[in-house]
Amino acid sequence: MAFSISEKEDTIIALATPQGVGAIAVIRLSGKDAIQLTNAVFRGKDLEKQESHTIHFGTIRDGDTIIDEVLVSLFIAPKSFTKENVVEISTHGSSYIINRVLKLFISKGARPAKAGEFTQRAFLNGQFDLAQAEAVADLIHSDSEAAHQAALHQMRGGFSGEIKNLRDQLVHFASMIELELDFGEEDVEFASRQDLHLLVEKLLRVVEQLIGSFDLGNVIKNGVPTVIAGKPNAGKSTLLNALLNEEKAIVSDIAGTTRDLIEDEINIGGVIFRFIDTAGLRETTDTIEAIGVSRTQEKMKTASLILYLFDLSDTDLIEINRDINKLENLGVPFVKVANKIDRANDQFISDLKRNHPDTIFISAGKKENLDELSHKILELVNLDKFKTGNTVVTNIRHYDSLVKTRDSLLDVLSGIDNEITNDFMAMDIRRSLYFLGEITGEITTDDLLANIFSKFCIGK
Amino acid sequence: MAFSISEKEDTIIALATPQGVGAIAVIRLSGKDAIQLTNAVFRGKDLEKQESHTIHFGTIRDGDTIIDEVLVSLFIAPKSFTKENVVEISTHGSSYIINRVLKLFISKGARPAKAGEFTQRAFLNGQFDLAQAEAVADLIHSDSEAAHQAALHQMRGGFSGEIKNLRDQLVHFASMIELELDFGEEDVEFASRQDLHLLVEKLLRVVEQLIGSFDLGNVIKNGVPTVIAGKPNAGKSTLLNALLNEEKAIVSDIAGTTRDLIEDEINIGGVIFRFIDTAGLRETTDTIEAIGVSRTQEKMKTASLILYLFDLSDTDLIEINRDINKLENLGVPFVKVANKIDRANDQFISDLKRNHPDTIFISAGKKENLDELSHKILELVNLDKFKTGNTVVTNIRHYDSLVKTRDSLLDVLSGIDNEITNDFMAMDIRRSLYFLGEITGEITTDDLLANIFSKFCIGK
Repeated sequence: MAFSISEKEDTIIALATPQGVGAIAVIRLSGKDAIQLTNAVFRGKDLEKQESHTIHFGTIRDGDTIIDEVLVSLFIAPKSFTKENVVEISTHGSSYIINRVLKLFISKGARPAKAGEFTQRAFLNGQFDLAQAEAVADLIHSDSEAAHQAALHQMRGGFSGEIKNLRDQLVHFASMIELELDFGEEDVEFASRQDLHLLVEKLLRVVEQLIGSFDLGNVIKNGVPTVIAGKPNAGKSTLLNALLNEEKAIVSDIAGTTRDLIEDEINIGGVIFRFIDTAGLRETTDTIEAIGVSRTQEKMKTASLILYLFDLSDTDLIEINRDINKLENLGVPFVKVANKIDRANDQFISDLKRNHPDTIFISAGKKENLDELSHKILELVNLDKFKTGNTVVTNIRHYDSLVKTRDSLLDVLSGIDNEITNDFMAMDIRRSLYFLGEITGEITTDDLLANIFSKFCIGK
Repeated sequence: MAFSISEKEDTIIALATPQGVGAIAVIRLSGKDAIQLTNAVFRGKDLEKQESHTIHFGTIRDGDTIIDEVLVSLFIAPKSFTKENVVEISTHGSSYIINRVLKLFISKGARPAKAGEFTQRAFLNGQFDLAQAEAVADLIHSDSEAAHQAALHQMRGGFSGEIKNLRDQLVHFASMIELELDFGEEDVEFASRQDLHLLVEKLLRVVEQLIGSFDLGNVIKNGVPTVIAGKPNAGKSTLLNALLNEEKAIVSDIAGTTRDLIEDEINIGGVIFRFIDTAGLRETTDTIEAIGVSRTQEKMKTASLILYLFDLSDTDLIEINRDINKLENLGVPFVKVANKIDRANDQFISDLKRNHPDTIFISAGKKENLDELSHKILELVNLDKFKTGNTVVTNIRHYDSLVKTRDSLLDVLSGIDNEITNDFMAMDIRRSLYFLGEITGEITTDDLLANIFSKFCIGK
């Protein structure tokens, strides 16, 4: 999807609102001729004589046939999303009308936009960098508060700022090293190797931190992979249903605006928890005893959180201690959840509290104490770091570039330690800069752009 | 759904674009406080100081939390769809964001709009009459050129104009009659009974014409009920599929904008044909012989069009003549369609052409001559009247009111003929006026309004 020069100058058009019946639909045009093309089929004021950011009522006509009464919004370059002339036509929300309008404009010379082409033009015209452009798509697809906040932070340039800061510092050093290269044989040292070492170590700490945030970022974007482990009849599916109903109850009932709840994806406190292999979970075969079996163990290791659920009326302390011992060896954070509190004897509860004071006592069936469980779960996924406004990497492309940046920076460090020549060191630094630049799009290839923007929806 | 005064003064809010993922979503507010409410959660320019029909970039915030970067369009009363202050907020198209924005505004005092409430306000505030308001919903749901043109004509006041004209003429006479009543015993005659007779006859002709157009209007709005009748193996389902594929081929392939094709609803030349009982049709039991059976006969009588399909290689002239005779007795327009022309012998074709020169010869399997068939079909449903721009009644509520108007006008006529007293005549005229007024909403009841607007989608 590399664009030729002429493609970049086309005036593009697409439906910007979703398919389906709604009160209105918005058709968006961008390009040099957007206003002129609209003016040619619009009966109302002369659009070419109007100011930017104004709205005009009139009709769209195909010859003498009125297609619709519309509102036309004008955005004159560079004061628009794409920095080109942009026209938004608000029509009645009929697919027949949308189709007629699109066809009319295409017959007059507009070209159907490719997926993400509006955002790509915004990027190419310097409206924002690549990481910000990618955040636009994330923002549209975010369905939890955490994912939404991460995407918005990134779209507004938070992440890009951190990367730019790292890059600026490296560029400064790189230019010093290159300067030394210019002096060739003279053996001057503009860039203190010691300072460079300190800087690269500092950069590495930041890069490592960003890389480390990807686990969290991934969880924010895709949900926390969670397993409920427990014996048959411990109440696993009852708990799952109770949490799901809790969410349904919280979710707003404003007509038609709630997302379709995906079974086994539960929003707890603004974070999506994705319950793994619930087919098996809902069977009664996935018992804690099976942890020893390697397949089950592997599955549990991929979880970011395990809810260890046991039935107070049907489990003794020996069994619980043995299970917990196994879970501790897995290395995945887990919550001890004692179910059917209404059926337990007091002695056992107090024994349990003494031995495992961090146990959460619930009744999944009676929906008792689920709030406490939710709090504990959120505590364990540790979103505090995120909530204080720190930057979190949510995009695997950025993660890959950061890992390559880290490796290059490690090469620079070992280069300094081994006193390699300036030209090799300059190459390592340039490689680090290249990978950092990939994130924000200072370094791009057509393939990379095509790959990124093709994931957008049409009209964005 | 009768509105109290306070409900009518609420500022209402709804999503105006369809559900689902799109580049943007538009949230619409209408009411006295629409701009003020928006200003309170908007960071950007002071919206209360901006002009109508202008667009402003900024952020929507819930306290310190940014929900989204948005464009806000302002329409200051009375220069808006509802004639109230209207704000349209264009957000990123995420259901999470839409939900957050809606909830935020509701927490600040906006009320979720009921179905059709924006259009209802437009009607109540005199933006247009009831027939025009109803046309807005028809326009959104129109999925063929004919339905679209009929709805647009009605929305733009074409139909209302005709009704208003009729009503004005009647009002003139009614006032004359009422004047005579005022003079009571004096036996004056301001309104010539002969002129009134002529006028009512003229009105009746127009009303009858409008009533008569409903068959056409209904067909335009809901599709032409069509039956393909023929022996097993005549090629009924092959023909249906061929017509459907023809449509698919014509339908634009602009990404994602084509309507979902409903099986057995086929758009031919801008008119929807609805093929009846195709489950049975696709069975091979629905033979032409079965016309004698009353159930089948009833079904065929409900059709507006019958395609009589026979296999040239498997039918003789005697059989065809017998079938055609049966069809003529049904009184439903029908087309004689000879299938499998590639397998017919020339002698039989020329015999057939001599006896039934209006036969269309096709090959459904090879998709030959389907164009000629389409032309013939369109000719038979007779949309010429519609295409010359005449008003067509498409709404059953209007049809009902017109029928009641006709009955009242007939009462007026027989009243004149029987020289009934003025007060009875005045009553009949007033009844006619009442039913005409129902159409455009000059006469309304809360129940009627509730019934009409509840059929709208939310946000319209």
